[in-house]
Amino acid sequence: MLVRPADPASTTPVSMPGASGVRMQVMVGRADDAPNFAMRHFVVDPGGHTPLHDHPYEHEVYVVEGTLQATCEGATIAVSEGDVLYVPSGATHQFQNTSPHSARFLCLVPVESDCGQPVPGS
Amino acid sequence: MLVRPADPASTTPVSMPGASGVRMQVMVGRADDAPNFAMRHFVVDPGGHTPLHDHPYEHEVYVVEGTLQATCEGATIAVSEGDVLYVPSGATHQFQNTSPHSARFLCLVPVESDCGQPVPGS
Repeated sequence: MLVRPADPASTTPVSMPGASGVRMQVMVGRADDAPNFAMRHFVVDPGGHTPLHDHPYEHEVYVVEGTLQATCEGATIAVSEGDVLYVPSGATHQFQNTSPHSARFLCLVPVESDCGQPVPGS
Repeated sequence: MLVRPADPASTTPVSMPGASGVRMQVMVGRADDAPNFAMRHFVVDPGGHTPLHDHPYEHEVYVVEGTLQATCEGATIAVSEGDVLYVPSGATHQFQNTSPHSARFLCLVPVESDCGQPVPGS
């Protein structure tokens, strides 16, 4: 059994185009031989955001701390600690931290999509 | 986009043999057309525990609140808020709350195992 703390100090910057003020750590993923899905821990600084993008795989998200503006298919809703989000495959989405405090969330993805291609960041 | 709070008041008792003082809610699962994996929210009362069991699929766990004794393949370790656990497929495991306070965790499973069979509670 692997045990690993979700520690903001263990995250590294996300360099994906369109991301700003976002850091992440793969908590469980392909490197751990996870066969089906990967858990990632994200930290979003005040004013930071993930890319506005879409991809051919889903997200399951749990907000650990703070408040985020979650946009999906043009609609934006505020989500906060304890909220669970499901972003379907193909939906255009973004998470923005417009608050003065850091926000954190878990984002899970399948390890494969597109008939066996590895999912980035899994 | 589905948004659903992880609320202990929305959980229902787990009646699986070997479970005691455990309640759960499927946050995202097969009923939501999640294609690959399911997120469940568990509450374990003081003195409560999940079954000591194994099954042919993995768990990815995030401890939301409190402290749990996590047993896997005969070894027990205390885990607490913010810890991530990976229990490989086939490993015998159990989560026990020996503290005087309620504990909560997310436990994610694939929606299928055994060549297409639905995973219970997904």
